[in-house]
Amino acid sequence: MGWKRLLEEYRRVRSFSEQLCKPLAVDDYQIQSITETSPPKWHLAHVSWFFETFVLTPFQADHAPFDTDFHYLFNSYYHTVGPMHPRPQRGLLSRPTLTRVLEYRQQIDEQMEALLSREPGADRDEIAFRITLGLHHEQQHQELLLMDIKHNFWANPLRPAYRDDLKQPSGEAPPMRWLERGGGVQSIGHHGRGFAYDNETPRHSVLIYDHRLADRLITNGEFLAFIEDGGYREPALWLSDGWARLQRDGWQHPLYWELRDGQWSQFTLGGVRPLNLHEPVCHLSLYEADAYARWAGKRLPREEELELILAEQPIMGNFVESDLLHPAPAGTRSQWYGDLWAWTASPYAPYPGFRPLAGSMGEYNGKFMSSQVVLRGGSCVTASRHLRPSYRNFFYPHERWMFSGLRLAEDA
Amino acid sequence: MGWKRLLEEYRRVRSFSEQLCKPLAVDDYQIQSITETSPPKWHLAHVSWFFETFVLTPFQADHAPFDTDFHYLFNSYYHTVGPMHPRPQRGLLSRPTLTRVLEYRQQIDEQMEALLSREPGADRDEIAFRITLGLHHEQQHQELLLMDIKHNFWANPLRPAYRDDLKQPSGEAPPMRWLERGGGVQSIGHHGRGFAYDNETPRHSVLIYDHRLADRLITNGEFLAFIEDGGYREPALWLSDGWARLQRDGWQHPLYWELRDGQWSQFTLGGVRPLNLHEPVCHLSLYEADAYARWAGKRLPREEELELILAEQPIMGNFVESDLLHPAPAGTRSQWYGDLWAWTASPYAPYPGFRPLAGSMGEYNGKFMSSQVVLRGGSCVTASRHLRPSYRNFFYPHERWMFSGLRLAEDA
Amino acid sequence: MGWKRLLEEYRRVRSFSEQLCKPLAVDDYQIQSITETSPPKWHLAHVSWFFETFVLTPFQADHAPFDTDFHYLFNSYYHTVGPMHPRPQRGLLSRPTLTRVLEYRQQIDEQMEALLSREPGADRDEIAFRITLGLHHEQQHQELLLMDIKHNFWANPLRPAYRDDLKQPSGEAPPMRWLERGGGVQSIGHHGRGFAYDNETPRHSVLIYDHRLADRLITNGEFLAFIEDGGYREPALWLSDGWARLQRDGWQHPLYWELRDGQWSQFTLGGVRPLNLHEPVCHLSLYEADAYARWAGKRLPREEELELILAEQPIMGNFVESDLLHPAPAGTRSQWYGDLWAWTASPYAPYPGFRPLAGSMGEYNGKFMSSQVVLRGGSCVTASRHLRPSYRNFFYPHERWMFSGLRLAEDA
Amino acid sequence: MGWKRLLEEYRRVRSFSEQLCKPLAVDDYQIQSITETSPPKWHLAHVSWFFETFVLTPFQADHAPFDTDFHYLFNSYYHTVGPMHPRPQRGLLSRPTLTRVLEYRQQIDEQMEALLSREPGADRDEIAFRITLGLHHEQQHQELLLMDIKHNFWANPLRPAYRDDLKQPSGEAPPMRWLERGGGVQSIGHHGRGFAYDNETPRHSVLIYDHRLADRLITNGEFLAFIEDGGYREPALWLSDGWARLQRDGWQHPLYWELRDGQWSQFTLGGVRPLNLHEPVCHLSLYEADAYARWAGKRLPREEELELILAEQPIMGNFVESDLLHPAPAGTRSQWYGDLWAWTASPYAPYPGFRPLAGSMGEYNGKFMSSQVVLRGGSCVTASRHLRPSYRNFFYPHERWMFSGLRLAEDA
Repeated sequence: MGWKRLLEEYRRVRSFSEQLCKPLAVDDYQIQSITETSPPKWHLAHVSWFFETFVLTPFQADHAPFDTDFHYLFNSYYHTVGPMHPRPQRGLLSRPTLTRVLEYRQQIDEQMEALLSREPGADRDEIAFRITLGLHHEQQHQELLLMDIKHNFWANPLRPAYRDDLKQPSGEAPPMRWLERGGGVQSIGHHGRGFAYDNETPRHSVLIYDHRLADRLITNGEFLAFIEDGGYREPALWLSDGWARLQRDGWQHPLYWELRDGQWSQFTLGGVRPLNLHEPVCHLSLYEADAYARWAGKRLPREEELELILAEQPIMGNFVESDLLHPAPAGTRSQWYGDLWAWTASPYAPYPGFRPLAGSMGEYNGKFMSSQVVLRGGSCVTASRHLRPSYRNFFYPHERWMFSGLRLAEDA
Repeated sequence: MGWKRLLEEYRRVRSFSEQLCKPLAVDDYQIQSITETSPPKWHLAHVSWFFETFVLTPFQADHAPFDTDFHYLFNSYYHTVGPMHPRPQRGLLSRPTLTRVLEYRQQIDEQMEALLSREPGADRDEIAFRITLGLHHEQQHQELLLMDIKHNFWANPLRPAYRDDLKQPSGEAPPMRWLERGGGVQSIGHHGRGFAYDNETPRHSVLIYDHRLADRLITNGEFLAFIEDGGYREPALWLSDGWARLQRDGWQHPLYWELRDGQWSQFTLGGVRPLNLHEPVCHLSLYEADAYARWAGKRLPREEELELILAEQPIMGNFVESDLLHPAPAGTRSQWYGDLWAWTASPYAPYPGFRPLAGSMGEYNGKFMSSQVVLRGGSCVTASRHLRPSYRNFFYPHERWMFSGLRLAEDA
Repeated sequence: MGWKRLLEEYRRVRSFSEQLCKPLAVDDYQIQSITETSPPKWHLAHVSWFFETFVLTPFQADHAPFDTDFHYLFNSYYHTVGPMHPRPQRGLLSRPTLTRVLEYRQQIDEQMEALLSREPGADRDEIAFRITLGLHHEQQHQELLLMDIKHNFWANPLRPAYRDDLKQPSGEAPPMRWLERGGGVQSIGHHGRGFAYDNETPRHSVLIYDHRLADRLITNGEFLAFIEDGGYREPALWLSDGWARLQRDGWQHPLYWELRDGQWSQFTLGGVRPLNLHEPVCHLSLYEADAYARWAGKRLPREEELELILAEQPIMGNFVESDLLHPAPAGTRSQWYGDLWAWTASPYAPYPGFRPLAGSMGEYNGKFMSSQVVLRGGSCVTASRHLRPSYRNFFYPHERWMFSGLRLAEDA
Repeated sequence: MGWKRLLEEYRRVRSFSEQLCKPLAVDDYQIQSITETSPPKWHLAHVSWFFETFVLTPFQADHAPFDTDFHYLFNSYYHTVGPMHPRPQRGLLSRPTLTRVLEYRQQIDEQMEALLSREPGADRDEIAFRITLGLHHEQQHQELLLMDIKHNFWANPLRPAYRDDLKQPSGEAPPMRWLERGGGVQSIGHHGRGFAYDNETPRHSVLIYDHRLADRLITNGEFLAFIEDGGYREPALWLSDGWARLQRDGWQHPLYWELRDGQWSQFTLGGVRPLNLHEPVCHLSLYEADAYARWAGKRLPREEELELILAEQPIMGNFVESDLLHPAPAGTRSQWYGDLWAWTASPYAPYPGFRPLAGSMGEYNGKFMSSQVVLRGGSCVTASRHLRPSYRNFFYPHERWMFSGLRLAEDA
């Protein structure tokens, strides 16, 4: 990417973070509802810290840190960079104030603009790579922002809406169709010149087995049939860990669903809405997705199966740019990208020959390759330009606060 | 108290709450560092809720609630009034925003002003009593505000100062003198016409044993001798529960002390300061106070012993009005009131013949009469007009975030 | 007590411990159902350790320890004697085996017999005191044994009976009568030459207020009325800590009660029995006792009130020697001693002028004087010769596995 | 397997369980040191319950259960069979006593003998399959017995030896050699007529990448170099979950190692022994194995890589029949089977086309296919006749009480 286009992209991505925060009151920036989430203020500072740490500090001459304490406060998990503020206590940081965090962002932006306005030198490629990485990093945090805000607001008994002006998705879910997919040795993993995370590499051969893929996600209506058939009360449908979690936390339905006076509703970024049976079912753990698939006599797709079909499709769908911030019924359009991250049956593991990035940036992906599971395809809170067919998202099997959904597969 | 003086007192107390919050950033209002503390925003709303619930709702004609949700959100522990938001989750309430909470305060104030401007009727005494109770309640929360802000800021690794303009206490601690106090059947408990909480009544006879009382609090310097003598490593000095707590939480010194490079410092509302050996030792649990007394070959005073001597003294000392917000060396003045709440040896229990207030206001005191211990005398964050000789403060024996200190006694 | 009578008493008490264990299978000796209980095997060893540590080691010439590891394994809480095995892990000690523990007991008995067979010397009084203390200590552990066995067996879904041959108490509970008791300065605390624990001393004056005492304990039938009136659902009846505990643990009735198909039953040392409405209600926490008293418009007695009346009564009642091991209906007999320990309103605190025993034996009582509450009068699992009018038992207010009951009092 | 040989195998396997328990005292049968382990008594009963539930109940005419309670008490995790006693409370079951459990075993054995002595009917194959499954099940529990006994004894500060007569392994570890292994599409999974668990099926194609395999396990000496190089203090070497676990539990070395006065020792089933640097390093979590591999610049093998080489080797090695009960130095022999289960890099997941067994026996394997990792090759506490090249063992990545070790691999 050219130096100038990089600067444009930098401005675009950075300003979108601020745009996402516009509906927030100062009070909202401070909330961390559970350990897994972070306060919006922390996100805004951390993504700036990323540029300061990995771009400005090494590549800006005489870089003077905005605040030396920030190095400790806004490091997320880069042990090789130094010690860090404990994650569960991010919500206790009333200082630095939001005002000061915004000043920080502004200064970083000014310095980044300056860096990108100078004549490129020998370090040009490395800088461009790191900035690109930083922008993808910030886009990930934009998705986290929306996930976290949703959970923060849901933890408030008032159930406030993040935005009152969101349009509700319309349309219906057509009958599910099954695509026949042939097997054999094929190739997956990132290739070409564009950006990718290290965990998408190297491109390598995989053995595919003949299978069938559903062309759309499972809907609320379909999932309700599972619930009404006693799906949450039948241990034979569940992975052992899933059943233990269900019992421990009293799961009876997906996160954000509520049953009152016989009516189902669902908390969304637009507030509480009646459950729309045509929308894809959302905020499932892997355990719930897997139990549904077992109940339906099917299975979850493998990540390589999804990557191969994603590679055949245009990257189009209900992304964050649609400004619905909620999954939409499939309607007549294809439902391969967007709407919801589809759980796969694939544990998150290194590809054959995987090498993490050198240095601290190698902590980005590789060290999380245990006990998590891959999801594919992006969601209604993902930036479309952030996606690739080879993109591997990953969460623990019990987690539910991300925009996760369920697509079925079966052996041929 | 006359209707007009009550209005003046109302204005005075209410505006002091806002004055205390002036040094806070919006972000600071949201923090709840531990379950025991509450966010400043919550305090501001709760004390207003108290007036709305116990004064306006019953006595204002056609009272329309400011917000019906507030009844649930800002009830602290009045089960008889209805269900309430769980205490540990007060820090998650970004909504209502601070702005809206301040509007709430303002509307309550306007309605209270109106109530106090009308001609008093037959309910005059009851209203006056409840307003007086509400003002004492708010004064308690002003003390809690300062306790909680101190802990919130300490939980931040930046250790920000609540105020940069606080004067540091000066002076020295004179040698401790022992007052001989005779025994016999005497009377304690509230008497006279002034306001008192129900837990200070009825006035009743108690049997006093001959004893001696120290005329000042134990200092940091004296407590340091205990530490340096291995006080925190010698189980024989500790109550069994205290030793278990010490080991569980790794106590090695009072809360807010820190040892770095051989130098002791102490976190205060004015930020981190070098430890002043002449100041009274502060933020002790009962266990630490009791262990010190045992080490010194003395004991803690009983609450009746302190009440009797307090009743002989003017209510003067280092209170919140001194604006030090920190205990001061005794110097030449008497150190009976203010500076620090003195732990007593007395479990918090009902007086013979105790009757809680009728109705919900009866939940104010009586239901806490188990496993807590009485403290007496007020502190540097207590309003002087809030104090009485018969005033009984109480905390659990392991708690340390209040401004608690230690005075010795011994049997004659 | 003479040397010879002491030996007889030693034999009597020690053999009773073994008699109590006769109904146990080897497997039963190993169980620790909750942290508060200890495996029967551990009790048997610990009481022997007490004699070894406090009598044989200091007073037997050339005492060679049976096993040096036992000093660590069977120390309960005497920090001044050395480190100890963590209490929650007592149930993990399959070694030493029961066989070896019984050998240990036997060797200690032989050495104690030898000690008591030699000519008494100058240390005679100290030895006699320590042996007497050790025998009272063992009697306390006999009571704990029965408490713990009951809980251990209840934790087993088979609900096995400790003994199949226990007689069931018979008789009825007569109407409750109220005794008028006058006030004034009176004396309590141990006096005379007999043995007492340090916590019963010194004898001292107390101020008594006019009051009334119920002449029997509250029955299952009376307590059932409290339950059926919604007593476990009404927070206004409960101490704040009690209500929190009730909610945390889901209390709906006393420990060991069970409601199945509309019928109440109760687990006893003789197995599950239908609830006898005439028996005293048993295994209450202080919180439940206090809530009942509040519901009944009465209060719990103070410990001094009970001591004074106990001092007027013969030490007779349903003790462990009755071999019912369960409280019995009051019938026509007096119900001051035995059946159940009566909760008092008195926090467990030192008497004025209290001095713990010197040295390690001082850890016996004093260090527990915080957050616990006094119970009086002995129970159906207490040895009658272990009791005195001044005897102070104590437990935490939430504990329920001891044989605790409820007697009402009221102000005159 | 013929009916008669099956009976012989039944006798052989069943009697071996009892032989393994011979060194235990009755007390030892009761211990459950951590939730993951079970008391030996429970193991003995559960494996008998398996035969009763899955063989005798369906196939023995007029089967009368030995004790109807056992169905609840000794069900491990078969939800489809009915509710079960909670796993963490197995150690509380003093009843049924060991004596009764042994009677149970005996009766099951008599009934099984009778069943196997009758003329086989149409259900012959199903019965034979279930008995074979039951015997493999019991062999797994024999391994668990030794794992659990080791942990139980280690949890005792006396560190008793399970057996005093165990021979210590001798010999040295030769230099590690690397085997070149070619890639391509190959087949793994069970084939042929012999018994296998459902999780080893179906046999299927896998894509193998060129790689190298170490011909022996990593030794204590080699692992010590990792420790001395700061391996447990360098987060960059660890998976994120592993580093969190290390910090939470304070890991500084493998389980059962101890450093005292500069000397390393290791707890074994033969008691505490000096650390033998030539023995394979034992009782590693996946996290430790993975960190070592990263430190060494290598990786863990994939399960298919190990299966292919195991299929080429005779099933010989240091198994439970060697009666060392501890891993031995590789010496001159091959170290592919036995000694220690080798961690692989492969999450435990279903094979393509996997179908669990029908009915309750389908709960044996499939439901555990999340968050666990595969180990291969058997160990010094595994029965050699229990092993197959396709055998998949699995544990959570943080678990360490099994006999797990570490073999290196690298990409070619």
